[in-house]
Amino acid sequence: MMSTIAENLARMKVSLPKPAAPAAAYLPFVQSGKQLFVSGQLPFVEGRLSAVGLVGRDVELEAAKAAARHCAINILAQVQAAAGDLEKIARVVKLSVFVASAPGFAEQHLVANGASEFIAEAVGERGKHARAAVGVASLPLNAAVEVEAVIELA
Amino acid sequence: MMSTIAENLARMKVSLPKPAAPAAAYLPFVQSGKQLFVSGQLPFVEGRLSAVGLVGRDVELEAAKAAARHCAINILAQVQAAAGDLEKIARVVKLSVFVASAPGFAEQHLVANGASEFIAEAVGERGKHARAAVGVASLPLNAAVEVEAVIELA
Amino acid sequence: MMSTIAENLARMKVSLPKPAAPAAAYLPFVQSGKQLFVSGQLPFVEGRLSAVGLVGRDVELEAAKAAARHCAINILAQVQAAAGDLEKIARVVKLSVFVASAPGFAEQHLVANGASEFIAEAVGERGKHARAAVGVASLPLNAAVEVEAVIELA
Repeated sequence: MMSTIAENLARMKVSLPKPAAPAAAYLPFVQSGKQLFVSGQLPFVEGRLSAVGLVGRDVELEAAKAAARHCAINILAQVQAAAGDLEKIARVVKLSVFVASAPGFAEQHLVANGASEFIAEAVGERGKHARAAVGVASLPLNAAVEVEAVIELA
Repeated sequence: MMSTIAENLARMKVSLPKPAAPAAAYLPFVQSGKQLFVSGQLPFVEGRLSAVGLVGRDVELEAAKAAARHCAINILAQVQAAAGDLEKIARVVKLSVFVASAPGFAEQHLVANGASEFIAEAVGERGKHARAAVGVASLPLNAAVEVEAVIELA
Repeated sequence: MMSTIAENLARMKVSLPKPAAPAAAYLPFVQSGKQLFVSGQLPFVEGRLSAVGLVGRDVELEAAKAAARHCAINILAQVQAAAGDLEKIARVVKLSVFVASAPGFAEQHLVANGASEFIAEAVGERGKHARAAVGVASLPLNAAVEVEAVIELA
């Protein structure tokens, strides 16, 4: 018997935060057909960014990977707000992972694993997703990582 | 009573330009189901880029925000060419805003507001969208901003 | 009479490689409705990256364009693995082309043409796509180019 996403999160000792309020003239998510587009999430933990600066200079790999996980937790919080129930996730379709990267840092895929592994563990088979991971020059508020998602709802 | 997008644009004194011709082996838009994917638009105004270089070094925040607005105007011009009538917009689903960023520039979200606020004012409720804003190293033709979109058509 | 994609590839003397195995906790592709989301592909040729470093400093334009073509070949290899038959491609909807760019390099659109022209030649009319091309700080494994795709299947 498969456990629910809520059961998985409880086992992982992850509480979903109150989703971040819409900033400015955009929304945290929009549904188009069955696809839920979740806006780029920053690694906010209790109102503060968990990792700030460039990965490979200001932020170590492990801290960046944890920040990617925080972004993914915030994505699930948005999905819960959008769908009401995480069990309505039919499939996590795609994650785009943007890593603020110091010159020469080339392990964006390992940073992104922090998001991918969290989603896979929390959501299970339906959580296995396509992905792109790239190294950007900088991110809003100097965040070290930003993750956006396309989720298919049932 | 809600005004049409054309009425909004007239009130805002915005004339949509002739949409940019396809450059090279790609198209300015492709429809998949109800979703219209609009290619990344640069801030061309009457054939010239309105902002060139890195934001935070060569381009001030306000000029970058204006450039993001120009990109969004060009997106609407493409939607008009694709759909024939802007009223066929069911929903602006997502904008991706790429800001060519100098080291340390961390206000990509404020730059992106130039696009988001224009779309919200011109398109109204149907214009409220999901968004990602990231700081990139550089953009084609040294443009300061590039915006791409997913639009749901009725 | 239109030739098949396989016939086009044979004429172009392109053999699709064995698609890259899923790395870590994500998949090379996920289908949502009719849309196949293909994960970001690097320019692997027989297990080695064809171009490494920053375009405009370590990699010349022509080599970067060739690398974009290699990424696109790897995308078609993934589509073949996903769909079983390339003729199931109804439309190449969108390519996102990420070019690892040295400061001041502003020809990402020309690099991206390496992917776009290959897809157009191999897939024909159904291969004409929307596109975004941006210059990023760095990419996984120090690859010079990464390309992801949305493909509509019949």
